[in-house]
Amino acid sequence: MSRKLRSALGHSTADRIFVRGHDLAGLIGKANLGDVAYLELKGRLPDERESLMFNAIAVTLVEHGITPSTIAARLTYYGAPEALQAAVAAGLLGMGDRFGGSIEQAARMLQEAPHDHDPHQTARRIVEEHRDRKQPIPGLGHPTHKAGDPRTARLFDLAAEHGFSRHHVQLMQLIGKEASKETGRELPVNATGAIAAIASEMELPWRITRGLAVMARAIGLVAHLQEEMEEPMAAEIWSRTESEAASDRD
Amino acid sequence: MSRKLRSALGHSTADRIFVRGHDLAGLIGKANLGDVAYLELKGRLPDERESLMFNAIAVTLVEHGITPSTIAARLTYYGAPEALQAAVAAGLLGMGDRFGGSIEQAARMLQEAPHDHDPHQTARRIVEEHRDRKQPIPGLGHPTHKAGDPRTARLFDLAAEHGFSRHHVQLMQLIGKEASKETGRELPVNATGAIAAIASEMELPWRITRGLAVMARAIGLVAHLQEEMEEPMAAEIWSRTESEAASDRD
Amino acid sequence: MSRKLRSALGHSTADRIFVRGHDLAGLIGKANLGDVAYLELKGRLPDERESLMFNAIAVTLVEHGITPSTIAARLTYYGAPEALQAAVAAGLLGMGDRFGGSIEQAARMLQEAPHDHDPHQTARRIVEEHRDRKQPIPGLGHPTHKAGDPRTARLFDLAAEHGFSRHHVQLMQLIGKEASKETGRELPVNATGAIAAIASEMELPWRITRGLAVMARAIGLVAHLQEEMEEPMAAEIWSRTESEAASDRD
Amino acid sequence: MSRKLRSALGHSTADRIFVRGHDLAGLIGKANLGDVAYLELKGRLPDERESLMFNAIAVTLVEHGITPSTIAARLTYYGAPEALQAAVAAGLLGMGDRFGGSIEQAARMLQEAPHDHDPHQTARRIVEEHRDRKQPIPGLGHPTHKAGDPRTARLFDLAAEHGFSRHHVQLMQLIGKEASKETGRELPVNATGAIAAIASEMELPWRITRGLAVMARAIGLVAHLQEEMEEPMAAEIWSRTESEAASDRD
Repeated sequence: MSRKLRSALGHSTADRIFVRGHDLAGLIGKANLGDVAYLELKGRLPDERESLMFNAIAVTLVEHGITPSTIAARLTYYGAPEALQAAVAAGLLGMGDRFGGSIEQAARMLQEAPHDHDPHQTARRIVEEHRDRKQPIPGLGHPTHKAGDPRTARLFDLAAEHGFSRHHVQLMQLIGKEASKETGRELPVNATGAIAAIASEMELPWRITRGLAVMARAIGLVAHLQEEMEEPMAAEIWSRTESEAASDRD
Repeated sequence: MSRKLRSALGHSTADRIFVRGHDLAGLIGKANLGDVAYLELKGRLPDERESLMFNAIAVTLVEHGITPSTIAARLTYYGAPEALQAAVAAGLLGMGDRFGGSIEQAARMLQEAPHDHDPHQTARRIVEEHRDRKQPIPGLGHPTHKAGDPRTARLFDLAAEHGFSRHHVQLMQLIGKEASKETGRELPVNATGAIAAIASEMELPWRITRGLAVMARAIGLVAHLQEEMEEPMAAEIWSRTESEAASDRD
Repeated sequence: MSRKLRSALGHSTADRIFVRGHDLAGLIGKANLGDVAYLELKGRLPDERESLMFNAIAVTLVEHGITPSTIAARLTYYGAPEALQAAVAAGLLGMGDRFGGSIEQAARMLQEAPHDHDPHQTARRIVEEHRDRKQPIPGLGHPTHKAGDPRTARLFDLAAEHGFSRHHVQLMQLIGKEASKETGRELPVNATGAIAAIASEMELPWRITRGLAVMARAIGLVAHLQEEMEEPMAAEIWSRTESEAASDRD
Repeated sequence: MSRKLRSALGHSTADRIFVRGHDLAGLIGKANLGDVAYLELKGRLPDERESLMFNAIAVTLVEHGITPSTIAARLTYYGAPEALQAAVAAGLLGMGDRFGGSIEQAARMLQEAPHDHDPHQTARRIVEEHRDRKQPIPGLGHPTHKAGDPRTARLFDLAAEHGFSRHHVQLMQLIGKEASKETGRELPVNATGAIAAIASEMELPWRITRGLAVMARAIGLVAHLQEEMEEPMAAEIWSRTESEAASDRD
């Protein structure tokens, strides 16, 4: 019994190309890149406030400076300069559970929470469950921005202004407050928590939210490779690491 | 002798995050995703016409329907559902010489051409050189859109309207005309040729132009994986391929 | 506070190269590839029975015919023929939770089980726990080899003959028996279960056991790419998939 | 017009599994890992001297200590600990033109050379052609092992002893001598040159020879990830690189 293969994302005829049912020639010069990403994920173009909010999320995720992922991309380019795409891919491979994964875990936590209960109670229960399982709560805290993640404030302001501050955003904020109370230390919502909440307001399924970081970071990785071509660091990192790692021999 | 490691792309302080010298909180909600990609590559935000043109290029490259790259991503997700980023990466790995590479080759051809000569003569020489080396000219012709690529017309119209139709665009167009005359068949400039020419007008170095396809396609791949979650084809492609490949045994 | 970087795997001097403390020139022509893999993972060369058993495991994992992983590698090579390594990598990316992951899960189950209890009781408890959590038991059953996996019999025979049939192998076998009794259908130990058990006898930590499949399959993927060069299927799979997926439009 | 999909590498029936026509159960415990790699690539099991020589080549390529590729794998594992396969893949992605590629280039040079001419003359012509194109000759010289690569001596001794020192090995050696004479500095055949020559004696097509490094290095990468689990360096490399790269700000 064979299953029919189907895809509604794109197709072409001899003189036209369609993306999610839209004539591509009509999108070019009209929709910006974030809008087309929204179209791809949601099946329709965003309205003005959706466009602003989705672009805001994506922009937040493009560039985080020197990270394990950008170093891996640079090292890969050093060995395989014939295949820029492989260096970007190597960088993306590190966007796993520790990085992009935290958006996914926070979005899952929010989307699986009951939304017909008192949200304060739901937040308390979520905090308690994580404490009992000795798991960190996804979307809270940041090693550098201890007093509060500057991206969160900005994203939540925009969400409030443009109508995306509903159940999920409220619950994420309450979880942050409960966790801070419970642990006695500041555990503010971080950028991944804010993005998870707003993506949930946009009804993006949690399983795909890691993809928001992946698509945005692909842009940042291309920029890192461009910088690596002009101001390389790969060979130097290799040389230092190799000589130190071998230094206590004999 | 050690080399200093430097990067100017991003860095953080306790309360701020910078991308290419811009405060990220100021970009969020103001700049769209394509604008931040431009900032990343060029070191400054685009003006209005640069924003429109760069977004137009990027939008063109997001989605091409079912391709070897999107099938590979879906098959990878089937085997490794724990790591969405790896499925996107697998899809990007196929954006090599045959696909994204043609932008790079066309951009290189244009950027290495002398721009102080008569462009008709330069175009003729380029066509002759490829004929003599029996190499196809990058950026020309399309298996489906034989009469003309609908993306090219749109991109070149926008380029003309917004001041990006200068040396490189003109040379690409002349190469298309010369090649058609030389071979006696229509060899119109395709989307990758148009993008290579406009990216060259934006002074993006040819070595990075493959990255334009890579960053845009990362978005499309995330959308394909979202579709694969709801309307899977990986197992069916596997099953059909395996049974056919094994069918002439014994 | 800086952490010293250390690696004991390999280093070079002007005239010698060392692998895990062994002069590489002395390994070349003496140790086979499986033996050096064992050296890499265990820090010492295998004795005769360890060599035989470890090579047996690795050989089992090299080639499984047409799989999602080998198709993805072929499709990637089609798009990026300049980078064979990227096509192999694309194939490996699909060796995740669904495939290579099952070795890891089975090895974890065995290594975390108490080995000071009655093994029958331990096996029963493991089967019950999986039933209660509605989780399949890793290492049992096979869609094709319903009556018994031909690899398992061979691996367990060798294990018995060469002294690797101890706690872990016994427990894996008991789990298979208990699960078959419990569910009323044949759930024999499959190849990944057998490999997980034997790898556990070799004291390979469960976290690395997925790597056994990864290293062996890299060999198989290179062979698939060699076959793809001579007898290609990528373009055909693309063309069929694309035309079927687009066929119910208009 | 549809093309039939075919593969001769592996297939299964309900009770047997075949690899290149051999019953897998018969290979397990009989053939070592290198022999099965040979079977996969050549379609038949090696005889004794082929087994020794092929394993020797593969063993040479397993482990090179700390390299860009192993660092990239470790950094990727840090970000995506859920997917060991992705970290191995990231490491392999750097086995491109600069590393694995040199085997391919050397094998191509040897396999495309005329073998009905005087080999001294052929070697001279190859050296001259590279000099005229200002290209380095693949397979010669080494930054560390300036006086001679210890792997080369061993591999060529084995090749001589076991009947693999014929046209290709001789030509590679002559190219090394000619290049040293021509340039006035020692340019001994390095390990990749020796491997390229011996692989050519085995009639492995040059397009697949990069795959020899890829398959062997997959083993080494798994070992590096095992070491990274116990003796991590990724976070430290990240932290040092990030703080240095950001240090000349303000």
